[in-house]
Amino acid sequence: MNRVFITGATGFTGIHACEYYNKMGFEVYAAVRSQTHPIKEVRSVHCDLMDAEAMKALLKTIQPHLILHFAAQNHSGRSWTEPLSTLNTNVIGTLNLLEAVKGAAPYARTLITGSVIEYDPCHSNEPNHPYGLSKYIQVLLSTSWSTFYDLDIRVAKTSNLIGPGHSNGICSLLAQKCVQYRKGGGEGFHFHNILDHRDFLDVRDAVKAYDCILQKGGKNETYVVASGKSHRFIDMAKDLKKLTQSDIPLTTEYFYHSPSVHYVNDKLTNLLWEQTFSMNQSLEDIVKYYENQ
Amino acid sequence: MNRVFITGATGFTGIHACEYYNKMGFEVYAAVRSQTHPIKEVRSVHCDLMDAEAMKALLKTIQPHLILHFAAQNHSGRSWTEPLSTLNTNVIGTLNLLEAVKGAAPYARTLITGSVIEYDPCHSNEPNHPYGLSKYIQVLLSTSWSTFYDLDIRVAKTSNLIGPGHSNGICSLLAQKCVQYRKGGGEGFHFHNILDHRDFLDVRDAVKAYDCILQKGGKNETYVVASGKSHRFIDMAKDLKKLTQSDIPLTTEYFYHSPSVHYVNDKLTNLLWEQTFSMNQSLEDIVKYYENQ
Repeated sequence: MNRVFITGATGFTGIHACEYYNKMGFEVYAAVRSQTHPIKEVRSVHCDLMDAEAMKALLKTIQPHLILHFAAQNHSGRSWTEPLSTLNTNVIGTLNLLEAVKGAAPYARTLITGSVIEYDPCHSNEPNHPYGLSKYIQVLLSTSWSTFYDLDIRVAKTSNLIGPGHSNGICSLLAQKCVQYRKGGGEGFHFHNILDHRDFLDVRDAVKAYDCILQKGGKNETYVVASGKSHRFIDMAKDLKKLTQSDIPLTTEYFYHSPSVHYVNDKLTNLLWEQTFSMNQSLEDIVKYYENQ
Repeated sequence: MNRVFITGATGFTGIHACEYYNKMGFEVYAAVRSQTHPIKEVRSVHCDLMDAEAMKALLKTIQPHLILHFAAQNHSGRSWTEPLSTLNTNVIGTLNLLEAVKGAAPYARTLITGSVIEYDPCHSNEPNHPYGLSKYIQVLLSTSWSTFYDLDIRVAKTSNLIGPGHSNGICSLLAQKCVQYRKGGGEGFHFHNILDHRDFLDVRDAVKAYDCILQKGGKNETYVVASGKSHRFIDMAKDLKKLTQSDIPLTTEYFYHSPSVHYVNDKLTNLLWEQTFSMNQSLEDIVKYYENQ
């Protein structure tokens, strides 16, 4: 059980996952598009998820024990301007991976990363955005493929991941702007609604959760990977301003008290997963990362 | 309101739809892959649903008032051996059409044809087959695109269509085998469970229903297009043997009384749609078709 294949390996979560499994002594196969992986111990393998045949050939060669699928178009905003590529990447890309697993690595344990904000047609009337729809369909296909072909698929529904490294998440964007502003370059930061709540979880805790799900979780089970806590943008922004000693002006389109969020992560904590990074620690590490860029 | 664009125009339903709209005085644009359309009055237009850009350019040129989307991989059996192409054709093909409508013909009324056997994740535990899953996702995307982009999408959930013309449906397959057998060539016919029930509807009644939905139905509404009656394979088979004067041997894998099916077509009959072909008339016309081949 020591070969792990990771898609989206050069992305925010992918890099942390490669680092984690490398430290754990795994042979890490990192799917990359053109570049090589920044971690030198990691084996970079060229991979185009839209090429079903190539995916199958790749898994036949690697014969991974664990697969973590992070490659995705993960921006809800961008899904409005690029709905076709969002659906193609998130749905057909995942389907090509599932078919490759079925054909070439049917005993691999595969983690599919959905989202807590995926659309839920059984409990809500209207889809939120093409991204939410694509994540719902991705998970539906994954659990269906697990049922149809007796594959060992496990699903994580993940909240907002934060932490050191390049990310387009709101904490990282704001931290970066704060540092730039203090250094004399830059504009303010604009929120849609600064009183909005999110469940923020450190990406390193998420990676540990994914491994926990793969090692101790159940086949065709779905786990919420979240802190279970609700944070307001305004509080996070105040903390980041303080940490960066930045006077960056904050503006907001709306200013209304939106409901807090409460994602229940009991199924994950039952696997003895524990959150180890506090919100403050995560924010400090994000700031450190951008101070050093 | 006189230009109609039909995908899957050379298929079983497509040909009947082209004939119907041609008789009604419409300018019929029939999407074809390589061949030209068998009805000479119909305008054949080359169309590859997997080519999003070409689809958009085509709709920009035609500027259809009505669109009927029949192009699909429609065999549940084949979806087990070709799951990738089933999902690609039925999901991404439809998405490319929806994007083309959004970009080039946003005022067109578009009919999407789902299936009464599509998977229903909100009311059943396990998906039935990749085909059922693909039709569910097709309809989910269509109604979502209607909501997101204010498009005039209407959905038909259609039962088993029968009638004259080339079809791979069970009535057509059996009628063809009966005629062959009587003429001296051939094997018997094998059922999975000869006591299974289906809701059979004449394809010509379905086409009238589709037009009724487009002319009198509502935006983003879903209509069950079915006879509302349940027929057993064994009774249909007896009728076909009689009509073809064929002694073809019938065999069955299973022989158990499965539940009858009852699809409620009230929403359609409320639009003053009426079924005009009896089951017997449909079977007679199928037999006539194969006798003349």
